[in-house]
Amino acid sequence: MLPRGFQDLLPERAARLRHVETQLLAVFARWGFHPVVPPSLEYLDVLTAAGGRGLQAQMFKFADPLGGQLLAVRPDFTPQVARIAATRLREWPKPLRLCYAGPVVRDVEVHAARPREIFQAGCELIGLELPEADAEMIAIVLEALRGLGLQGFTIDIGQVEFLRGAFEELPLPPDARRLAEQAVMKKDRSALEELAATLDLTRAQRALLVSLPGLYGGPEVLDRARQLAGNPRSRAAVDNLEQVVRILEIYGLEGALTLDLGELRGFDYYTGIIFEGFVSGAGAALCGGGRYDRLLERYGPPSPATGFALDLERLLDALERQGALQPFAGSDVLIINLRPGKEEALSLARQLRAQGFAVARDIIKRSVQESIEYAARWRIPRVLVLGLEGVPEDEVVLFHTGEQGQRRVRLADIFREAEAWRRSGGGEGRWPTSS
Amino acid sequence: MLPRGFQDLLPERAARLRHVETQLLAVFARWGFHPVVPPSLEYLDVLTAAGGRGLQAQMFKFADPLGGQLLAVRPDFTPQVARIAATRLREWPKPLRLCYAGPVVRDVEVHAARPREIFQAGCELIGLELPEADAEMIAIVLEALRGLGLQGFTIDIGQVEFLRGAFEELPLPPDARRLAEQAVMKKDRSALEELAATLDLTRAQRALLVSLPGLYGGPEVLDRARQLAGNPRSRAAVDNLEQVVRILEIYGLEGALTLDLGELRGFDYYTGIIFEGFVSGAGAALCGGGRYDRLLERYGPPSPATGFALDLERLLDALERQGALQPFAGSDVLIINLRPGKEEALSLARQLRAQGFAVARDIIKRSVQESIEYAARWRIPRVLVLGLEGVPEDEVVLFHTGEQGQRRVRLADIFREAEAWRRSGGGEGRWPTSS
Repeated sequence: MLPRGFQDLLPERAARLRHVETQLLAVFARWGFHPVVPPSLEYLDVLTAAGGRGLQAQMFKFADPLGGQLLAVRPDFTPQVARIAATRLREWPKPLRLCYAGPVVRDVEVHAARPREIFQAGCELIGLELPEADAEMIAIVLEALRGLGLQGFTIDIGQVEFLRGAFEELPLPPDARRLAEQAVMKKDRSALEELAATLDLTRAQRALLVSLPGLYGGPEVLDRARQLAGNPRSRAAVDNLEQVVRILEIYGLEGALTLDLGELRGFDYYTGIIFEGFVSGAGAALCGGGRYDRLLERYGPPSPATGFALDLERLLDALERQGALQPFAGSDVLIINLRPGKEEALSLARQLRAQGFAVARDIIKRSVQESIEYAARWRIPRVLVLGLEGVPEDEVVLFHTGEQGQRRVRLADIFREAEAWRRSGGGEGRWPTSS
Repeated sequence: MLPRGFQDLLPERAARLRHVETQLLAVFARWGFHPVVPPSLEYLDVLTAAGGRGLQAQMFKFADPLGGQLLAVRPDFTPQVARIAATRLREWPKPLRLCYAGPVVRDVEVHAARPREIFQAGCELIGLELPEADAEMIAIVLEALRGLGLQGFTIDIGQVEFLRGAFEELPLPPDARRLAEQAVMKKDRSALEELAATLDLTRAQRALLVSLPGLYGGPEVLDRARQLAGNPRSRAAVDNLEQVVRILEIYGLEGALTLDLGELRGFDYYTGIIFEGFVSGAGAALCGGGRYDRLLERYGPPSPATGFALDLERLLDALERQGALQPFAGSDVLIINLRPGKEEALSLARQLRAQGFAVARDIIKRSVQESIEYAARWRIPRVLVLGLEGVPEDEVVLFHTGEQGQRRVRLADIFREAEAWRRSGGGEGRWPTSS
């Protein structure tokens, strides 16, 4: 019943998505970031102003019934936040630290169950051109993922200006350049060697071209890149990347970094540092980010900017593979009332809720045994029954789901009893119950 | 730059929206509700299966680039949750307690700044036909709104079957019936009297028709309705409404109720109890809900159901008018580093964040005075400066934004100092920083 590439998140997955989203936004807040909520739909023109043929082709677009202008469903938060920063927030003193969370939709090819709706959370740091700003983005990502318990996470960090300078330096005809770019993207050295053999290149130019896919690894990559590329644009890119890496060393995060100067991936609006995050066991990036110093000027005054977005479902998948997710947890207790009056049951439920417990009421007519089975399926660990035959007025019967037997508890002792439930924990399977 | 009826939520408003959303979802969890996340886009057919010409005309629709079937952007969560309940969750034991939060878009006429994007949060209770279920919906709404500090809130509660029975009982030609329905909606008794004069009605039928707009008020409405409408359908509706009111009396909520049997508003899929919530000073409903026992069968096995949705922006507006919102709060502290090395500043920021504080770093080059002005604009109450001239290595200088003077604090004492910040509170102006 659903269009391909779209899905429903059922209670367990939905609760985990909310949990991860809340945790991430809390980390962003601790780094001084404030939320914005851009609209779900925008003028197509505004979104395409961000550039990028790839993303333009992926937009769900249609005419506004009111006025007929073309609209699109949000495919990416960054152009929206850039627009907000360059228009509504243009008079606010810089830097702007803005964050967001929500879905984007992209009409991608849906092979291999690739989704067309992606749940993201991200940050945009606007008004700073210093490498500290890029380093801050990467530090936030790493802190956020560690905080969620994710392990074995690495960041591939590059600088788009390096390759742009290298391709300026290399005298490649347009066709050869396109082939070369594709080979670099695929890290296909032999294709580059074949290509180089067909071209009239100096020894240094040839060395640069065939080495591009290999500019990948630890800090030694920086020196090799400097030896290979003599042009100022590439040199400046290497210097900039080095500065970012130095700051991340001060953060103590260098162990999570892989440098990659043969990288062009990401959005067309990137102008400097770019990065993607990976976890072992999955090929797809869990997050992507980079510097986009020319995006705000398409909506208002120019301003440097850098940011990132995390893919929450890939993050959940990675956490699940690592066993880092708590099992689904239902409500704390199911209350069944067999007494003729409803007062006591409602009052008990209200008092338990006031103390922060999640209380479901069983207001369906069935046997106590069936209710206990219901509780088990919904992962409700306890069932409290009022009015069971033979039980005094001032007592209730407590069943533990999945265990044999039952226990009588005086109504007056329920709240002391309930304190122990709190210690047994709620888990990630439901909304955070704290405000 | 935005399509009419769409808007950006800037930091203060966005943070408040998130805050209210989180609070509401926490209340829903305490009542045993679990989140689902339906997709942003659905097949138009699936959404129109829910019926309702009004909403159908309001959908943003377009062809899926993949396959060409018509899609629409979500205009309403209830049909989506009904579909999920009737398909993916059909084998789960009932009742299902499901909740959601997110935007819906509707192509409404945008006079008087009426938005075309609405942020909602709501619950659906599926599998229960008892009046207790409807009462639970209303009790949750009232508890949630009281928890947010909203005052003077009332629920208008009706039962669509009453009017349906009344119109069956009245021998009205189609044109007259349409006029009568419109007059009832507008509570226009004189239009009904004019209409009645043109029709051949018994004395009792005439009394019923002209009294419909007046069936509004306290519990006495129930008896008047019984005297006026003799048909079994209307009688059953009155009995059902009375049962719901009785249960809400046990909850102690009868003071917030207004009965309204002359009400047809709401979605076409409603089949029983309907309600809307209002706060004095605003004409528009803050929430709406009702019973929809015939919706699930359009997607799978039939099941009774009841639910509601809150409009978060109207809720924020009402809280704002009542002065119930906390002022915007920025980060707890802005750290400025004038020392040549970055280690201490980064380390201090990290340690403060680890204790839950929101710490922004000023990594722009400007004077301390300008940074303090920046902090004031972003509601950051404190500025910590490392490396001010003449200050010993083991001390920092603390400025309080908006106050004169400064104070030297030993680095070693910062964390004790910071405990006092916690007591001064964060406010609603930023993401919740607790996990």
